[in-house]
Amino acid sequence: MNSFGQKLRFSTFGESHGKALGCLLDGVPAGLAIDEEYIQSELDRRKPGKSEFETARKEADKVEILSGVFEGLSTGTPIAMIIYNTNQKSKDYTNIKDVFRPGHADFTYFNKYGIRDYRGGGRSSARETAARVAAGAIAKLMLKSLNINILSGISQVHGIKAKEFDYEFAKKSIIYALDKNIEESQKEIILKAKNEHDSVGGVSRVLIKGAPVGLGQPLYYKLDAILADAMMGINAVKAVEIGDGILSSELLGSQNNDEIRSDGFESNHAGGILGGISNGDDIVMNVYFKPTPSIFKEQHTVTTSNEEVDFSLKGRHDPCVAIRGTIVCESMAALVIADMLLLNMGSNMNGLNKYYS
Amino acid sequence: MNSFGQKLRFSTFGESHGKALGCLLDGVPAGLAIDEEYIQSELDRRKPGKSEFETARKEADKVEILSGVFEGLSTGTPIAMIIYNTNQKSKDYTNIKDVFRPGHADFTYFNKYGIRDYRGGGRSSARETAARVAAGAIAKLMLKSLNINILSGISQVHGIKAKEFDYEFAKKSIIYALDKNIEESQKEIILKAKNEHDSVGGVSRVLIKGAPVGLGQPLYYKLDAILADAMMGINAVKAVEIGDGILSSELLGSQNNDEIRSDGFESNHAGGILGGISNGDDIVMNVYFKPTPSIFKEQHTVTTSNEEVDFSLKGRHDPCVAIRGTIVCESMAALVIADMLLLNMGSNMNGLNKYYS
Amino acid sequence: MNSFGQKLRFSTFGESHGKALGCLLDGVPAGLAIDEEYIQSELDRRKPGKSEFETARKEADKVEILSGVFEGLSTGTPIAMIIYNTNQKSKDYTNIKDVFRPGHADFTYFNKYGIRDYRGGGRSSARETAARVAAGAIAKLMLKSLNINILSGISQVHGIKAKEFDYEFAKKSIIYALDKNIEESQKEIILKAKNEHDSVGGVSRVLIKGAPVGLGQPLYYKLDAILADAMMGINAVKAVEIGDGILSSELLGSQNNDEIRSDGFESNHAGGILGGISNGDDIVMNVYFKPTPSIFKEQHTVTTSNEEVDFSLKGRHDPCVAIRGTIVCESMAALVIADMLLLNMGSNMNGLNKYYS
Amino acid sequence: MNSFGQKLRFSTFGESHGKALGCLLDGVPAGLAIDEEYIQSELDRRKPGKSEFETARKEADKVEILSGVFEGLSTGTPIAMIIYNTNQKSKDYTNIKDVFRPGHADFTYFNKYGIRDYRGGGRSSARETAARVAAGAIAKLMLKSLNINILSGISQVHGIKAKEFDYEFAKKSIIYALDKNIEESQKEIILKAKNEHDSVGGVSRVLIKGAPVGLGQPLYYKLDAILADAMMGINAVKAVEIGDGILSSELLGSQNNDEIRSDGFESNHAGGILGGISNGDDIVMNVYFKPTPSIFKEQHTVTTSNEEVDFSLKGRHDPCVAIRGTIVCESMAALVIADMLLLNMGSNMNGLNKYYS
Repeated sequence: MNSFGQKLRFSTFGESHGKALGCLLDGVPAGLAIDEEYIQSELDRRKPGKSEFETARKEADKVEILSGVFEGLSTGTPIAMIIYNTNQKSKDYTNIKDVFRPGHADFTYFNKYGIRDYRGGGRSSARETAARVAAGAIAKLMLKSLNINILSGISQVHGIKAKEFDYEFAKKSIIYALDKNIEESQKEIILKAKNEHDSVGGVSRVLIKGAPVGLGQPLYYKLDAILADAMMGINAVKAVEIGDGILSSELLGSQNNDEIRSDGFESNHAGGILGGISNGDDIVMNVYFKPTPSIFKEQHTVTTSNEEVDFSLKGRHDPCVAIRGTIVCESMAALVIADMLLLNMGSNMNGLNKYYS
Repeated sequence: MNSFGQKLRFSTFGESHGKALGCLLDGVPAGLAIDEEYIQSELDRRKPGKSEFETARKEADKVEILSGVFEGLSTGTPIAMIIYNTNQKSKDYTNIKDVFRPGHADFTYFNKYGIRDYRGGGRSSARETAARVAAGAIAKLMLKSLNINILSGISQVHGIKAKEFDYEFAKKSIIYALDKNIEESQKEIILKAKNEHDSVGGVSRVLIKGAPVGLGQPLYYKLDAILADAMMGINAVKAVEIGDGILSSELLGSQNNDEIRSDGFESNHAGGILGGISNGDDIVMNVYFKPTPSIFKEQHTVTTSNEEVDFSLKGRHDPCVAIRGTIVCESMAALVIADMLLLNMGSNMNGLNKYYS
Repeated sequence: MNSFGQKLRFSTFGESHGKALGCLLDGVPAGLAIDEEYIQSELDRRKPGKSEFETARKEADKVEILSGVFEGLSTGTPIAMIIYNTNQKSKDYTNIKDVFRPGHADFTYFNKYGIRDYRGGGRSSARETAARVAAGAIAKLMLKSLNINILSGISQVHGIKAKEFDYEFAKKSIIYALDKNIEESQKEIILKAKNEHDSVGGVSRVLIKGAPVGLGQPLYYKLDAILADAMMGINAVKAVEIGDGILSSELLGSQNNDEIRSDGFESNHAGGILGGISNGDDIVMNVYFKPTPSIFKEQHTVTTSNEEVDFSLKGRHDPCVAIRGTIVCESMAALVIADMLLLNMGSNMNGLNKYYS
Repeated sequence: MNSFGQKLRFSTFGESHGKALGCLLDGVPAGLAIDEEYIQSELDRRKPGKSEFETARKEADKVEILSGVFEGLSTGTPIAMIIYNTNQKSKDYTNIKDVFRPGHADFTYFNKYGIRDYRGGGRSSARETAARVAAGAIAKLMLKSLNINILSGISQVHGIKAKEFDYEFAKKSIIYALDKNIEESQKEIILKAKNEHDSVGGVSRVLIKGAPVGLGQPLYYKLDAILADAMMGINAVKAVEIGDGILSSELLGSQNNDEIRSDGFESNHAGGILGGISNGDDIVMNVYFKPTPSIFKEQHTVTTSNEEVDFSLKGRHDPCVAIRGTIVCESMAALVIADMLLLNMGSNMNGLNKYYS
């Protein structure tokens, strides 16, 4: 239940303020060149404390490979990676020891397990996603070798929505903004919320380029369904949309169908997926993040013994969790696509015979 | 890959125009009273041909239990159910034998498998969902015994959106409309599209009442993530939203957090799920359906040998697939909740000791 | 829990005296020619009532394919097969309704589930294995296309052990005996036990020819481990041995190691598996069956209310369950090997690149 | 594929001569007291270098818990444990870099993956089983709280077989011998083989006391089948036997059936399992180990480029791998039983209602 994927399966462990976080990545084909610098560079994109738009917690997020790689190549055995926590300030959390923070998993974990590692959210902290990014970086290396690329950026902050999607610009933007024309307004709204001890929501847009036709296993491991699973499972995500999803529900069939020509589809309302299987076109998703629940304004809540209290959070938090979240979306998308590539092998006898010939 | 769920797992089989459809439901606790009339009544809610708002294909959708039930009770062994197809008009489909219908899975199945049962979409047809409803009915029986209820209805057709959600009204509405004030307008827009040989999209809203705190297995079998998987996997669904999902992305944290009082949450923006685990409040989802891709207007497409053709579909189709789809959403939701209830057992030592004492 | 396999996964359903038995086979590559006569011929090898060495229950075991096959070819969708029960004599079982038969699953099912389909053992009856043979026949068709063959026969009945293993002879022997020199003695010992209202144990030997190097996924889906799982899960099996297994435990390393030459291994003590992965040599297993627990001699037992009774079984039973069991061993072996072939795809980047080039 | 179990699932990572070994244990109920000293004491039982009957490689096998435990209790999140390698002598292995050791996984790994970590067997080394023992120790803690105990010992070395099974004696015996009367002869035969640069096989006998009736999920996750999977997957194991398994195949039904009295079974030929489900009696298994393939005698083999060579192994090896292997058998058995206990919850509505009441 702390694992994801079928043929490429990763498992994560670790708590926000424990000794270490890490992941196991199982199913990587042998012979893949494992570029450790690239993996670290991916972690650096997600790591906290890079700017005023992020939490002030500074973590090196230095990843170490413990197994599964020999002389620079994957061996086919599980790749374990570990990230030691270095900048825990657990004492920040003594005041939430007996209090359920609104919008957080405190209440549900405590009721489910009867015990809770209250330091920084423990396992439910978004800090766990560092492990996903490490795993995702290896998936991306695998995809790159097949010319498949995963891109993303922030299309919306609070109510400010991108009109154009420039993934190259997003790479350089400190808030991973897709639209350079609204980047400044988006920054402002984040800082305004931060200064008012509040937070804002946002939307990440993910683009998968180069995926071959045929990825996705009908009917209960469809590509869109598993992408939805993967995205919705990211901390603070509350909605997932494939292609023109929400808009499609307001369209006519004649508007929404993507007609086909000999050189491909005339449009891409479908977001690259038909019947749960990739159609060779760009795969497009929007991932909707709620505002960070950790705010410094006073809120009503209860204690673990159900006494009402007025409560003010301390600690260090992202004013807009979508920003670093977009890197996690990319990572999860990469893991899904890589898994689907492996699962797809053996779909038909031609492929089987080719492989074993 | 044609199975769903972990401890309560169902598998389906069958094609739109094959001999039969069916499902296997594995993991039902022994001793559950299996009310066959109830199961049939659920299938009747989904079955086609009940009104002008649905496809004209008439299917009795008579379900027969083949195993797993003895003297009216489940025995703990897999419950197999079968539904024979009776009203196939396969000849309707000879004209699509070599053509990829826009918006359909024809293109992707053919490319993935190299072979395609073209009769009515074969396996990719929404007809398969009858099997899910049969399985879902048994899940609902299990949930009812624990006072958990799954309700749903249509909140939106094309651009016409419900302002109130009356699930009792929806039960009686021929289009399962949630808002009696706009039901007529919604009906009109459907018929208008139908008369113009077109189709419309829509939105199903699902409400789960009575689920206990603690359902959902972090971090990679979260309740919201698996609901997203389940819903997105339903034919024609393109977006899934938990609670105020999309709106949340435009809110401040102070607006979106649900504050807590000793008698429960003050609001339910979260849709009953925190950190991937149910919080005891109502679980609320919106499921966005694209317009039925099967329209009778002429469209551009290509043949299996990639020749461009102008193509007009024949056959019998739903003008708004969301309507019957909402019953499928309920069924899938019931299967997810029942699975999560079983998975949750053993979350802590208190529960384990209680069970084995 | 009623499913087996990872990429080629089958699920079975049905009780001994219910309406029907059946299976779902998921993951068969599209484009495999499905020879229905061959499938039936496999079922005929296992079906009861063919001779005095078997139960007198006569079942046609006529298998019908319900889905997943179109114009003679697999489509990549789940293949459902059904076998209707025709010769139930449920009244034979009224005398065991409240009694636990020694050596049977009656006691454990009743205690686990609190309810029991007592008619002929219900789900725990070896009759369920007909569904495995149907699934196994399709796996064999897939294997044949890659020149992999599964053979088996009876090497031992009671204490009478084969000295030579002639799989061609076994095909024709009414008791599937491997050694023609002892077939008669084996037949006699079976009939003697039968006439004395008793039963005998036996051993099936399985040979897999032509499996490529590389099948098996270390460390927890090893080929030998999954074969052990598959064989031990067959009714009445109590031990599984790979290669010279039991003898190996009495040997020196220098005796047991298979030395290697440029044209292959000099011996095959290992039974074709090293480190859980096939080494390209013949895969050899021995599967040990206990005597049929259904005997007509009076035995001590208790009722469901724990009252002691002296009990004499009625009904129709195999005097040596290993005989028909050997066909089940073959089928399960075929399903394991086919699954491993599919899982093995993507083990290394060379294979991945070859597949997607 | 490097994971085992359904509800209690562990995954391992690490190579014999890599940085570290470790495991992730997922599904431990929250609130279990995690006694680190006990876990270490279990590792100490398996660790190498304790006597002349074992390999001379000395490893502290010091285990460190990285996550999932808070204030001495499990939290319900994955427990990661790490064991750093300290005494690697990788240079011992340069002479096998290009050579396939007979009886080892070198040949199969190289052919499957196209790459091989040749240092000490890499992933295929029995050193990986340290991680299983760490996971198994936590499973044992969980079982102890329910009064279930796992015991084991060596019943046979080479041809010398125990006549009595004294598990208390085995705990103190340096070779974990079950029969004090033959311990000396067993020691002698091990040393004799060692002095002759050879190795011997052996048999571990495992006893599970106190398991309740009802463990095991028919039909494809049977207790005996999963035990067989677990045991056969241990390095060097070539056969697994439940109860009187092999002997049973030579018995009559009237001899082999365990008759039942109001206070329990009159005998235990079945080894505590009927129909794949525990019957409340002692669960008994025999696990057959081949002789360690690592011997110092000269052997024929080939290089990775298929050239024939005469080869003499260097390094440090166990003369009888069954000895330390018996601890691994215990650990795997504990993991299986704990998993089955969790899976069994929800088998019937009575249990479900009791849990959720």
